Amino acid sequence: MVSNEAPLTVGRYLAARLRQCGAAHAFGVPGDFTLALLDELLAAPGDGSPALQWVGSSNELNAAYAADGYARVGRTMGAIVTTYGVGELSAINGIAGAFAEDVPVVSIVGMPATGALGSGALLHHSLLDGDHEHFVRVFREVTAAQAVLISGSAAVEIDRVLTVALSTSKPVYLGIPTDVAVAELAPEDAARLAEPLRPRASDPGALAAFERALAQAVAHVPSDTGEGEPVVTVLAGPRIHRCGVEADVAALAALPGVRIASQVGSKAVIDEDHPASLGTYMGAITQREATRRAVDEATLLIMIGTVVSDFTTGFFTQGFDPAAAVELALDHARVGYAVFADVRLDDAIAALDRVIAAATLPASSDAVAPLATVAPPSDDDAPLDHAALWAEVQAWLPPDTTLIAEAGTAFYGALDLTLPDRCDLLGQPVWSSIGYTIPATLGAGLARPQRRPVLIIGDGAAQLTVQELGQVFHHGLAPVILLIDNAGYTVERMIRSPEAVYQDVVAWNWRLIPAALGGAHVHVRRAPTVGDLRSVLADATAMPEVPVFAHLTLPRDDAPRLLVELARRLGNRPAALQEHA
Amino acid sequence: MVSNEAPLTVGRYLAARLRQCGAAHAFGVPGDFTLALLDELLAAPGDGSPALQWVGSSNELNAAYAADGYARVGRTMGAIVTTYGVGELSAINGIAGAFAEDVPVVSIVGMPATGALGSGALLHHSLLDGDHEHFVRVFREVTAAQAVLISGSAAVEIDRVLTVALSTSKPVYLGIPTDVAVAELAPEDAARLAEPLRPRASDPGALAAFERALAQAVAHVPSDTGEGEPVVTVLAGPRIHRCGVEADVAALAALPGVRIASQVGSKAVIDEDHPASLGTYMGAITQREATRRAVDEATLLIMIGTVVSDFTTGFFTQGFDPAAAVELALDHARVGYAVFADVRLDDAIAALDRVIAAATLPASSDAVAPLATVAPPSDDDAPLDHAALWAEVQAWLPPDTTLIAEAGTAFYGALDLTLPDRCDLLGQPVWSSIGYTIPATLGAGLARPQRRPVLIIGDGAAQLTVQELGQVFHHGLAPVILLIDNAGYTVERMIRSPEAVYQDVVAWNWRLIPAALGGAHVHVRRAPTVGDLRSVLADATAMPEVPVFAHLTLPRDDAPRLLVELARRLGNRPAALQEHA
Repeated sequence: MVSNEAPLTVGRYLAARLRQCGAAHAFGVPGDFTLALLDELLAAPGDGSPALQWVGSSNELNAAYAADGYARVGRTMGAIVTTYGVGELSAINGIAGAFAEDVPVVSIVGMPATGALGSGALLHHSLLDGDHEHFVRVFREVTAAQAVLISGSAAVEIDRVLTVALSTSKPVYLGIPTDVAVAELAPEDAARLAEPLRPRASDPGALAAFERALAQAVAHVPSDTGEGEPVVTVLAGPRIHRCGVEADVAALAALPGVRIASQVGSKAVIDEDHPASLGTYMGAITQREATRRAVDEATLLIMIGTVVSDFTTGFFTQGFDPAAAVELALDHARVGYAVFADVRLDDAIAALDRVIAAATLPASSDAVAPLATVAPPSDDDAPLDHAALWAEVQAWLPPDTTLIAEAGTAFYGALDLTLPDRCDLLGQPVWSSIGYTIPATLGAGLARPQRRPVLIIGDGAAQLTVQELGQVFHHGLAPVILLIDNAGYTVERMIRSPEAVYQDVVAWNWRLIPAALGGAHVHVRRAPTVGDLRSVLADATAMPEVPVFAHLTLPRDDAPRLLVELARRLGNRPAALQEHA
Repeated sequence: MVSNEAPLTVGRYLAARLRQCGAAHAFGVPGDFTLALLDELLAAPGDGSPALQWVGSSNELNAAYAADGYARVGRTMGAIVTTYGVGELSAINGIAGAFAEDVPVVSIVGMPATGALGSGALLHHSLLDGDHEHFVRVFREVTAAQAVLISGSAAVEIDRVLTVALSTSKPVYLGIPTDVAVAELAPEDAARLAEPLRPRASDPGALAAFERALAQAVAHVPSDTGEGEPVVTVLAGPRIHRCGVEADVAALAALPGVRIASQVGSKAVIDEDHPASLGTYMGAITQREATRRAVDEATLLIMIGTVVSDFTTGFFTQGFDPAAAVELALDHARVGYAVFADVRLDDAIAALDRVIAAATLPASSDAVAPLATVAPPSDDDAPLDHAALWAEVQAWLPPDTTLIAEAGTAFYGALDLTLPDRCDLLGQPVWSSIGYTIPATLGAGLARPQRRPVLIIGDGAAQLTVQELGQVFHHGLAPVILLIDNAGYTVERMIRSPEAVYQDVVAWNWRLIPAALGGAHVHVRRAPTVGDLRSVLADATAMPEVPVFAHLTLPRDDAPRLLVELARRLGNRPAALQEHA
């Protein structure tokens, strides 16, 4: 809480709210309409607590991706600050990705002064038509709440918008005119800071009704369904991470009769060698048949924080009926067709825990054994291919890692790994915007410095956002980066027209990239063979404080198992997409 | 015209229309929803004419910037192809810049199949809310026409949307579902290609009425206003370039009694050593007082294709009354308060030429002499600063150059140059989105290969879009690139808080950048001193076929004259922006 004596500006109030919500860093690029705002946001708070830390980004899209990665891995709120028009629009793809994948990122935009906005002044960074509401209308499409602040109501509006972000786990938008950024709040507005913001609470009546309906559903589970038959399966989705309720899910896994499958956006939501872990479920292309059956044929399927989309269901090949399942969503719960509004995920999980603990469920079937590494060990001299790459990564990957896998060969290779304990898999299975993971590595590393980021990314994707490696190295992070150089967009080649000119990318000299971007201290190695990869991974283990950049050369048309399956479904048949509709 | 026998697909029809409109190249990044579309767009036409050339971009924002630069420098249409959601949104800042600065760029988006869109399928690259109209609504804010194509009306809709681009010189949006891209057109639709698209024609009655009103206004110009007094001044703005009517403006300059000042977005609209050239007008911060007076005190001011905004008027310090002037705009004309709708700029210029040629105007005052180079020659050993940089560039700059100057120190330095003959100055004085010029250099070089691009850019701006240098080198262009390394955002430091942490950028090893991005053949030189700069410029002259990359180190807080003036007006006074409203 701030002293009553020091009048707070709007900018300082916002910074205090962001810090209360867990955003210790803000990402962005300055512009003339943000300078006064940034001076307020980054000012030292009067109470001796740490100021909001600025992370200058190479560009605004990278800032949005970094804030998204920061929020995901930190289980917190992310924040970016950009300038009017040019800056905010450059970031929008990252904000839309946060919407698609439920990440609470606040897009803070420094705007022209209130008077200039109101009079339709013909300013730079505008469309010169006198309409200064174009961009807030744009952001209405990709954020859950928006406000352009005016002086009298700024604190109330900030609180309203940030509460939506907390409650929905979606991005929100705050436009702040230069004069409003430095305006002082009335004492009663400043006093609001004494009360931290909280997500909207559950409706107690709805929660109790849900718990009764859930108990009835669990009571109908037969006590014996025959040896090895699936009984109660939890399908645990990525929204669990957004609420930070992984421990509650792990507690469920300890109850008899419960087994847990994950989705592609929440791969290691419980440790993958936990006896109750079924690994990852993806409909018909699920790696292990026992996992697929445990979900598709469960007597009772409980979906927690799940996302149902093309990529999460193996292109809508799920064998279960969502309408017959129990679902715990971010802000409501459901038992079959009965929907209970205003029941929050954390409260619903607690209710589920009570109900299952009180029930007498039959013991779980045997655990589904983790798969052995697919590929047999290769000779050191063998040229690297995907089979060998993922076998080596599986053998090496240490616990306490944030594994970050770019859309394309990397993500689908990573999905078939069995992750060690306390590992996260960070990727974008829904939005799938190539280039996301380099800035996300920055955000991930800053959010959880104690977990080493391991980034696996293809050359085509890396070219989109490569410059943010400069920030990764500048901020002292020590990721292990495996750059898959396979001469273009292999994921698109798998789908159609592999020889087309548009599948190629410009050939870079990757080994010069780290030093060019200021990373003279980076350990850079080529790895055309399996032995080279083993060697560089051993280096990475031996040098935990040093960033490692390995340039892997792989065959152009080689891909991991899962991508081959997916591409076949995405492939050369436009009608196929209509089938999924 | 295509043969009647070969049925055309929608994608091939669009490619033919783009080529007819002058877009020989298309820029972009592929995605799974664009692959079928790209195969159609890039297919060889049946008639033996060249196919649309693909320029694969590093990312979508760079693609949009490149297409914008291509359209500006080529005086033609630009085209980008991106994928649904992730791709199109990444490009939007570049499209909005095209809107702000009147550049006809077509944003072509490969979308999911019609059936999937209509049923609200939960697809990757969507927001997973079943609403597939978010992004077209977004683009309504920054484009002049939009269509999501359906099979039956695709040709008609393509023609409608492209005609708006031709008529308004603004960007437009075409969303093309995968099934529509490959759908065959009915013969009567395919036959439309026989008739090239044209901008909407002038209304003959309105045009005649404008010419009569103009003749009356010119007749009121006194035949003798005293020696040296300004009489008729044309203020020539950037929209002249969008219509490609520079030759018509140059013809006006040959008439007695006419002198021509340019705006910041159209600096060399006539050769700057032409006797009728007044150089560049920027309100109170105009470099030459005689130029300022010739505009502000003209007996008759004729504004042609002008843009009135903060940066083009020295922050609204113009001394003339636009309402008392004659104005020739893109799609209407005006004499004082009388507006003539549907009069196109080219027709209006022809009328103006007729009226002035027929009038007996007093002879022009003496030409405004070009300024001598500001700075005296420096010693070879002197450290480089802005005064010396611009003096050396002035002394070296060859004719037939596309000078490309990034927002910030570079653009405002370039504005004070006197450009040699047949030079363009490319920049973004209205939208002012940093990072624009690297991709714009690619577009400029492809659009007019006979003019060597000379790019001047600061380190902060270059970091936003640096990867597109790879494309510049890959496509065989030989620009001269002067990279101003001044340790951050000097333009923002001039405005406020020069010591703030957000003004810094990560220190890169710039000399490694060209080779890292595949430009092993680039001539790379450091230039910390004036002598080094002279030497690298001499190298550039000696090696016209080789790309040159010079790493200039300049003092952190040094800036050209004009930027100091502008920053003072933009500076530390939020109320100042309200004044301009």
